[in-house]
Amino acid sequence: VRPIALLTDFGSGSVYVGQVHATLARLVPEARVLDLAHDCPAGHVEAGAYLLESSLPYLPDDAVVVAVVDPGVGSARSILAVEQGGRAFVAPDNGLLAPVLAGAAVHRLDAARLGVGTPSATFHGRDLMAPAAARLARGRPVASLGPPAEPLRPALGATATPDVVEGAVLLVDPFGNLVTNVRPEDLERLCAPLDWLRVTAGPLVLTGLRRTFADVAEGSALAYLGSGGRLEVAVNRGRASDRFGLGVGAPVRVECEAS
Amino acid sequence: VRPIALLTDFGSGSVYVGQVHATLARLVPEARVLDLAHDCPAGHVEAGAYLLESSLPYLPDDAVVVAVVDPGVGSARSILAVEQGGRAFVAPDNGLLAPVLAGAAVHRLDAARLGVGTPSATFHGRDLMAPAAARLARGRPVASLGPPAEPLRPALGATATPDVVEGAVLLVDPFGNLVTNVRPEDLERLCAPLDWLRVTAGPLVLTGLRRTFADVAEGSALAYLGSGGRLEVAVNRGRASDRFGLGVGAPVRVECEAS
Amino acid sequence: VRPIALLTDFGSGSVYVGQVHATLARLVPEARVLDLAHDCPAGHVEAGAYLLESSLPYLPDDAVVVAVVDPGVGSARSILAVEQGGRAFVAPDNGLLAPVLAGAAVHRLDAARLGVGTPSATFHGRDLMAPAAARLARGRPVASLGPPAEPLRPALGATATPDVVEGAVLLVDPFGNLVTNVRPEDLERLCAPLDWLRVTAGPLVLTGLRRTFADVAEGSALAYLGSGGRLEVAVNRGRASDRFGLGVGAPVRVECEAS
Repeated sequence: VRPIALLTDFGSGSVYVGQVHATLARLVPEARVLDLAHDCPAGHVEAGAYLLESSLPYLPDDAVVVAVVDPGVGSARSILAVEQGGRAFVAPDNGLLAPVLAGAAVHRLDAARLGVGTPSATFHGRDLMAPAAARLARGRPVASLGPPAEPLRPALGATATPDVVEGAVLLVDPFGNLVTNVRPEDLERLCAPLDWLRVTAGPLVLTGLRRTFADVAEGSALAYLGSGGRLEVAVNRGRASDRFGLGVGAPVRVECEAS
Repeated sequence: VRPIALLTDFGSGSVYVGQVHATLARLVPEARVLDLAHDCPAGHVEAGAYLLESSLPYLPDDAVVVAVVDPGVGSARSILAVEQGGRAFVAPDNGLLAPVLAGAAVHRLDAARLGVGTPSATFHGRDLMAPAAARLARGRPVASLGPPAEPLRPALGATATPDVVEGAVLLVDPFGNLVTNVRPEDLERLCAPLDWLRVTAGPLVLTGLRRTFADVAEGSALAYLGSGGRLEVAVNRGRASDRFGLGVGAPVRVECEAS
Repeated sequence: VRPIALLTDFGSGSVYVGQVHATLARLVPEARVLDLAHDCPAGHVEAGAYLLESSLPYLPDDAVVVAVVDPGVGSARSILAVEQGGRAFVAPDNGLLAPVLAGAAVHRLDAARLGVGTPSATFHGRDLMAPAAARLARGRPVASLGPPAEPLRPALGATATPDVVEGAVLLVDPFGNLVTNVRPEDLERLCAPLDWLRVTAGPLVLTGLRRTFADVAEGSALAYLGSGGRLEVAVNRGRASDRFGLGVGAPVRVECEAS
């Protein structure tokens, strides 16, 4: 059976995560199930898509990923089952799967095919997506779960013009580091060398990119390309979020000093 | 071996959870161990009983559940080992196992039979309950752990009269939704149709039940029957707990407008 | 394969923990991986060493432990691979492995021997330590990962004189209990009987040690030897951290009343 990875905004230790694990343990007890992330900001689809995209290099090649950031649960929104490059993904149709749509087989979950009872109106991760993932883990193809579908493709990511990149904080990590939605390719188009970048976030103005925390003095701020492939802002041995009062959604602006 | 599920108020990521996992990995390395919940409000037995009860439909049929919400740890309170309907449960004798006592075989843990060293005075989940669960996972019956016992049965749940249900917030979930101790059967006895229900919690007065979050406008509050089978109060795409200043223990009152 | 245990300050539910799990699931899918703790105070090496030391009695005898509390990530600090008493440990060379250095084989990780790509500058837990642990889990010796090394041995722990022990709060547990860095042997040297101890922490002065929470009235404070083998301060059914305004790093002073 294929390994299963869970990515949610349910909060680690919550019974929502636990009941998804329990459901999988009932349906596919021999599968390895790993927790990829559960601290996605609540209902923040773009942050969830980032967590998924940044984890793709590390997941097993045949993983089945259940991604649940689902503020529209119980409404008319569809649930997708997607196969791409040997992996499968089950998630609400709200943009969360944007990083894995290129060249993918995309199907819409037909709940009737799962053979489960009536789902609750507020917890489709447990009642529909986990059973769908269990089937995929056992080797069924995504096409067995429902008809082909055209996924929603909401605009995500920072806005880049030749002069400026206008982005936002996607999430605050457990160290208080600020992960933004600004990509390296946005920066490379804007400015060369990258030493001339100017990053503005709230009261903070930083020039140039550093490699790691220890490249600045303790208590000093830095901008750098994070381990998840986005522009990040941190304080060496401190919490940037608290120090500068910046949280999820805070605007981040990048310009080139030479311009 | 039987799968083991853990339900505690230890907090996810704490070394308390980790040492229980480590102990189980030593004693019964081939068992599947899943985290059912670790964010039960500290010492809140009724919330723990809710988390257990609401998870029963999802657990494997032969699961061994270790439930540790144990404010009386180290005192004279007993530890129970209970078998009901193919599953086994190990927990302090404080009402936490109320949802699984009907028709159950109830035994009191005799620590001497475990063959473990002297337990700490403050961590029986690790030192007594995990070793007991390991034995049960290996197929030993609950009767092997100690003599039959009569469990405590403290009064739990909302107070229902023909005119009003007086309940409380059991827990605030990671979305800020308020899960109460009011059951659907309390509501059905009170009011038909349920459209006439009036739910009062702090500054909030809501009429009728909704099906899911998207049934009200963004930022609006709603009352609904949650995925765990209790009355819940939430804000669509918002945090009801923060908006209305309501936390664990806050009173919730339900009446029928027609009365 | 050997079981793997993870001890970090990454925060439970974070994608950092998840990507370490994913990496291990890729490299050594048949290994049991358990989360020992992820709520170590950020960058607090002494607290991490405590979490490791206090967990040693519970870990499987052949466990591979990946310990990542690594404020110097990406700087010139080494990564160590240590074998002691049948177990292996991978961690930054900053004192985190102090509890397992006695009689240990200590090697410095040579990244080139791992055969992995260029590591990120900010996430060596995922890019170097997890791959190293995967090798050890498959039975490779620590000597295969790099040359012998002399570990850093920073001074950790409370300062004891014949008259006073000067310590600090190492961590606040999920119950608000304060775990200090004061060891029982410090106390025994200071005072006999231990009933005469006087513990001072912030506004709090406590005399004598109790056995468990229920030994004092609800809402009262107590000092006791915790389940992790350190002096702790708590409030029965309350949160000592909040009540007394004490957090990580707060000084704790112990004297003997008889002196």
